Amino acid sequence: MSEYIDGQSSRSESVGIVERKFFTLPEGAGPFVLEGGANLSPVTLAYETYGELSPARDNAVLICHALTGDAHVAGYYSDKDPKPGWWDLMVGPGKPIDTSRYFVICSNVLGGCTGSTGPSSINPATGRPYGLEFPVVTIGDMVRAQRLLVEHLGVERLLAAVGGSMGGMQVLEWTVRYPDRIAAAVPLATTPRHTALNIAFHEVARQCIMADVNWNRGAYYDGEKPSTGLAVARMIGHVTYLSDEAMRRKFGRRLYEKEAFSFGFDLEFPDFQVESYLRYQGSKFVERFDANSFIYITKAADYFDLAQQHGGGSLTEAMSRSTCRFLVVSFSSDWLYPTSRSRLLVQAMKKAGLEVSFAEVEAEFGHDAFLLRNERLFELVESFLEHALAAERKRTETAPREVWG
Amino acid sequence: MSEYIDGQSSRSESVGIVERKFFTLPEGAGPFVLEGGANLSPVTLAYETYGELSPARDNAVLICHALTGDAHVAGYYSDKDPKPGWWDLMVGPGKPIDTSRYFVICSNVLGGCTGSTGPSSINPATGRPYGLEFPVVTIGDMVRAQRLLVEHLGVERLLAAVGGSMGGMQVLEWTVRYPDRIAAAVPLATTPRHTALNIAFHEVARQCIMADVNWNRGAYYDGEKPSTGLAVARMIGHVTYLSDEAMRRKFGRRLYEKEAFSFGFDLEFPDFQVESYLRYQGSKFVERFDANSFIYITKAADYFDLAQQHGGGSLTEAMSRSTCRFLVVSFSSDWLYPTSRSRLLVQAMKKAGLEVSFAEVEAEFGHDAFLLRNERLFELVESFLEHALAAERKRTETAPREVWG
Repeated sequence: MSEYIDGQSSRSESVGIVERKFFTLPEGAGPFVLEGGANLSPVTLAYETYGELSPARDNAVLICHALTGDAHVAGYYSDKDPKPGWWDLMVGPGKPIDTSRYFVICSNVLGGCTGSTGPSSINPATGRPYGLEFPVVTIGDMVRAQRLLVEHLGVERLLAAVGGSMGGMQVLEWTVRYPDRIAAAVPLATTPRHTALNIAFHEVARQCIMADVNWNRGAYYDGEKPSTGLAVARMIGHVTYLSDEAMRRKFGRRLYEKEAFSFGFDLEFPDFQVESYLRYQGSKFVERFDANSFIYITKAADYFDLAQQHGGGSLTEAMSRSTCRFLVVSFSSDWLYPTSRSRLLVQAMKKAGLEVSFAEVEAEFGHDAFLLRNERLFELVESFLEHALAAERKRTETAPREVWG
Repeated sequence: MSEYIDGQSSRSESVGIVERKFFTLPEGAGPFVLEGGANLSPVTLAYETYGELSPARDNAVLICHALTGDAHVAGYYSDKDPKPGWWDLMVGPGKPIDTSRYFVICSNVLGGCTGSTGPSSINPATGRPYGLEFPVVTIGDMVRAQRLLVEHLGVERLLAAVGGSMGGMQVLEWTVRYPDRIAAAVPLATTPRHTALNIAFHEVARQCIMADVNWNRGAYYDGEKPSTGLAVARMIGHVTYLSDEAMRRKFGRRLYEKEAFSFGFDLEFPDFQVESYLRYQGSKFVERFDANSFIYITKAADYFDLAQQHGGGSLTEAMSRSTCRFLVVSFSSDWLYPTSRSRLLVQAMKKAGLEVSFAEVEAEFGHDAFLLRNERLFELVESFLEHALAAERKRTETAPREVWG
């Protein structure tokens, strides 16, 4: 996903100064066995929380981030921090995911590089960063780790999980894996599995990194990083996140700081604005992201297949495991995970007898639209969560009370 | 464009054994001044011809190749040659572009790497390959060089020019630059100019090459070639040449020679078939193509803007320079140069008072469709050329005879 400077909410409207926290799985619990079979230990998740958990512990909303996101959803790390979290438009006091009503949790995914255990973490067996010795993790593994964090925070049952793109995959995984532990779910701009085209784009991006001599089969932490390859991988991502139409409007064929074609290949001054934009996005990304994490996380998204992994090949069967109510949202100009994928999900949910609201939101910015200001999206999320909370409170009032240890 | 082994015509139906020839601009003609201002000398074009020029010299059809094509359109180089030219399905005796009726010419583009002068050619000023000292060439430059070749072959006026993708750009350029020298034109799966998305894909592919340490700012001819970068660049191309639907049918999520996910990053044995396909296409491509040529030719395509360069910004104005009859064809699943681009062309041609036939051909293989067996496409091209030849013969019969020196 992109970072947009424009369209941010003002500092005073934000959740304020926030803090990144860490949760390490207790040693006594034994190793964390991954779906691929490997044992991972220790496992640490970086996370943030905003708002207060209600006395009934029924207002927790888990945000699941996309490919290159992190736990820093909203607010600022200090008064001088120039930029808020990546979904500050959505999450904060009075915002659609209202931190004065909900207890919001977000953790960096397993395999990530902003505080959670990943390929750049120290491998206790060698005392050096894992690199390619890090085991491949899945969306299921990410969600299983999140569940342990959520429990650690005193939440037995989430009010909702919300996320776009690969975040939406985690949301879906939550609903079928832990049906008793989640009341509502908002998968945005997502898909029940990657098509060959999706895999192809990820594979090409991975190959860009692996083609960088500095990648060194993942063992680059002592030397030069594969920044050039990672930057180009990021450029590919950006091409797929925007729509043809959005690019036309944003850049068209306008030249970059020149009146006529350069008739050359100046790496600093490309001909077209779109070239300059992509190079800038690429170079900015490498400052904050680890190339190996990129490789691992894209692989997790490629492996994800809700029907195969939870329904013996049937999406309806998989969704039948869930008892959630859903809000599914797609975006009209998203060609990476187009509306047809969301419709597949919605059909399966309906066949499984689940309560589903679905909307294709008009938006021109392609796949990135879920991250941007969009009043229709905001209204949908806000009212869905309100409704979910009301329904959840009604349910617990009428249900026989459980006695918690 | 891809190379498809399947769907080729049999050897006996081909134009037979063909030969690559060379044409070097006569020294006496002075340097070839490029649109970017540079002088280029010597200029050599590699070309092939099939069929015979009629006594009236009115049956010449120029084929313009796409990005990574070459002059070898049809036939075989020897009895042992395992593969015919890239458009053997379209060009040959009894085929849509019937070599028993037409004199077919195709040359490798200026800037190319299969015999025509390009960045891998020797720079006479240094005695070494040009590399980045090669001047940037345009679609206009390619066409201007083709015109000199065509004249050299004794053809004053082409019956037609035919080409897909970047070949279609050259076809369009011919019609507005040399209206008196071309009677008919068949631009296939093409566009009057690149959008930001098209430029973005080309730029990312160029960056893949430039990110390869072996690229060495284009000066790699004495050492290791930037094959890794070029292979990844090619992979990006392939992702854009196929449609989502075609990829789904061709590969889906099928695994490559395994029963379950590898949970690893084996470079030899990727998880998915689509990954294996892309790696194979990339590795095959680097055997036959020069990385610098790829950089130069993609740039030429990005620069191409028919309206800007020939109509002061108006496509209708640009097309008004032409007197051709046109067959414009787009393909239903082509998302790189979708039907909407062809419609823009057709509208401008009609406004300019030109005779145009237009068809959107149903085809599932995306942008690559123009290269594949497609009976509808074949019929359209065949009957259009027949019609064009008849019209041209009628025109010359009724026109006052010119006396040729």
